[in-house]
Amino acid sequence: MLAGIELGGTKTVVAVADVDGSIAEQYRFPTTYPEETLNVATQWLKQRGRVTRLGVAAFGPVSVNKARADYGQILTTPKVGWVGYDLVAHLEASLTGVSIVLDTDVNAAVFAEVRLGVARGLENVAYITIGTGVGAGFVVDGSVLHGAIHAEFGHLRVPKHPKDDFEGVCPFHGDCLEGLASGTAIRSRWGKGGHEIAAADKAWDVEAWYLAHGVQAIMAVTSPSLVIVGGGVSQALGFHAKVESMLRELAGGYFPVLEEVKQYIVAPALGQNAGIYGAFLLAQQ
Amino acid sequence: MLAGIELGGTKTVVAVADVDGSIAEQYRFPTTYPEETLNVATQWLKQRGRVTRLGVAAFGPVSVNKARADYGQILTTPKVGWVGYDLVAHLEASLTGVSIVLDTDVNAAVFAEVRLGVARGLENVAYITIGTGVGAGFVVDGSVLHGAIHAEFGHLRVPKHPKDDFEGVCPFHGDCLEGLASGTAIRSRWGKGGHEIAAADKAWDVEAWYLAHGVQAIMAVTSPSLVIVGGGVSQALGFHAKVESMLRELAGGYFPVLEEVKQYIVAPALGQNAGIYGAFLLAQQ
Repeated sequence: MLAGIELGGTKTVVAVADVDGSIAEQYRFPTTYPEETLNVATQWLKQRGRVTRLGVAAFGPVSVNKARADYGQILTTPKVGWVGYDLVAHLEASLTGVSIVLDTDVNAAVFAEVRLGVARGLENVAYITIGTGVGAGFVVDGSVLHGAIHAEFGHLRVPKHPKDDFEGVCPFHGDCLEGLASGTAIRSRWGKGGHEIAAADKAWDVEAWYLAHGVQAIMAVTSPSLVIVGGGVSQALGFHAKVESMLRELAGGYFPVLEEVKQYIVAPALGQNAGIYGAFLLAQQ
Repeated sequence: MLAGIELGGTKTVVAVADVDGSIAEQYRFPTTYPEETLNVATQWLKQRGRVTRLGVAAFGPVSVNKARADYGQILTTPKVGWVGYDLVAHLEASLTGVSIVLDTDVNAAVFAEVRLGVARGLENVAYITIGTGVGAGFVVDGSVLHGAIHAEFGHLRVPKHPKDDFEGVCPFHGDCLEGLASGTAIRSRWGKGGHEIAAADKAWDVEAWYLAHGVQAIMAVTSPSLVIVGGGVSQALGFHAKVESMLRELAGGYFPVLEEVKQYIVAPALGQNAGIYGAFLLAQQ
């Protein structure tokens, strides 16, 4: 049986795959403490049969490189109780005989969008998610980018919006991208969530400024031909068009990748299922 | 005969390889107009024998992806006379029967440093060069990163230094990284070249601020385990230590890659020869 776990910062999804690789059955529940969360997932899986292959798409920072001594562990995170927790060891102990592939939630999402979604067939794609936090995964020259640890895109330092004096919410950096543009930052800065802010509100100009700087940094480093932006905050009306317009202004006509498409910043096609599809695909590699 | 051309923004190097892959003979001359520059190189090569394999390490932006219609051409550049010039077509016409591998000068340099230099054996490395302009090449998960076009690292947007009101020299963006931190920017801002500025001058704090933000952006995207900084500007006394110290301050203890080495930002080992060694290695692939 092929299964997937998407371990998110606020919710976890566990699913088993159909023979065609689609989702046969899934269960979504809140992410709490490590053992409690994983036990819910493994109990649910055991009731469905014997899992042979399991893809795990986890929030970061997490050590996904098998060559490292800390492989399988959650690294430095503000998330209480999770620092140093060994995901893979716990899952291997609970699910006898399982073969586990671990990657970040955003790497799973970009992989799924490249194989099955809006970026099908492309070789160079970035996937940014903006929810409680900000993260990104990359496919570069046809492969998922891992790096020495993995991308920490949320903690990119970006120029402040000229009219923004908000100090940011990141416990490590204050005003990094995540500190200024995450859902948490929006709630702290404006006193309400993104879904409560009207599309014409200037709050979205500030948000688009930061996201556009983030996308510009990615263009400067990995040169993707398409950038997918997902996550709760990105669902605001006109969000992608606003970020794209700001990006084109910033780019000053210099980046050929922008000249080759009408729409460079797009919404994901797989929506909430990208993580689980990615987990299935990872486990099948 | 294996040969290499490093086509730089201000100088060009042409070389032939010894049987062991080292430089048998090389010639360095100023980069002028396209045909003139390439003719000097090809004439020099023809006098030495028949070139069968040629690695070309060129300044960017340049189209290095064979799947693209503009493969082999110099793209949008402020360099007079070079926009749209087809390097590969010209070289193929001049050197009958030659097999050419084209990449950017910084990709060649990072490849050479990973194979032969300071980053030998590492899988994730960035190489930044700061001379007339600013550029970067990356090895990611063991391979040279290409992307849809290639990295345009010099044009990264960075937060302004709190005490810097210099508007920048980039003709496209003004105050992008290259506009604020290149050798050209240093000369324009301070009225003299980097080699004329004392190590204790506050100019180097400003320079380190911008470079550290550039390195931080790379950490946030490709997660290298080592960053090499080369180019004329980097030769100032104490330069690497100053950028490293600023970077560690910026990183706020969050990036594990920084905790694993004493020195994260290092000088290249191959110096001025990295481009030519990279060109040889490219042509041998």
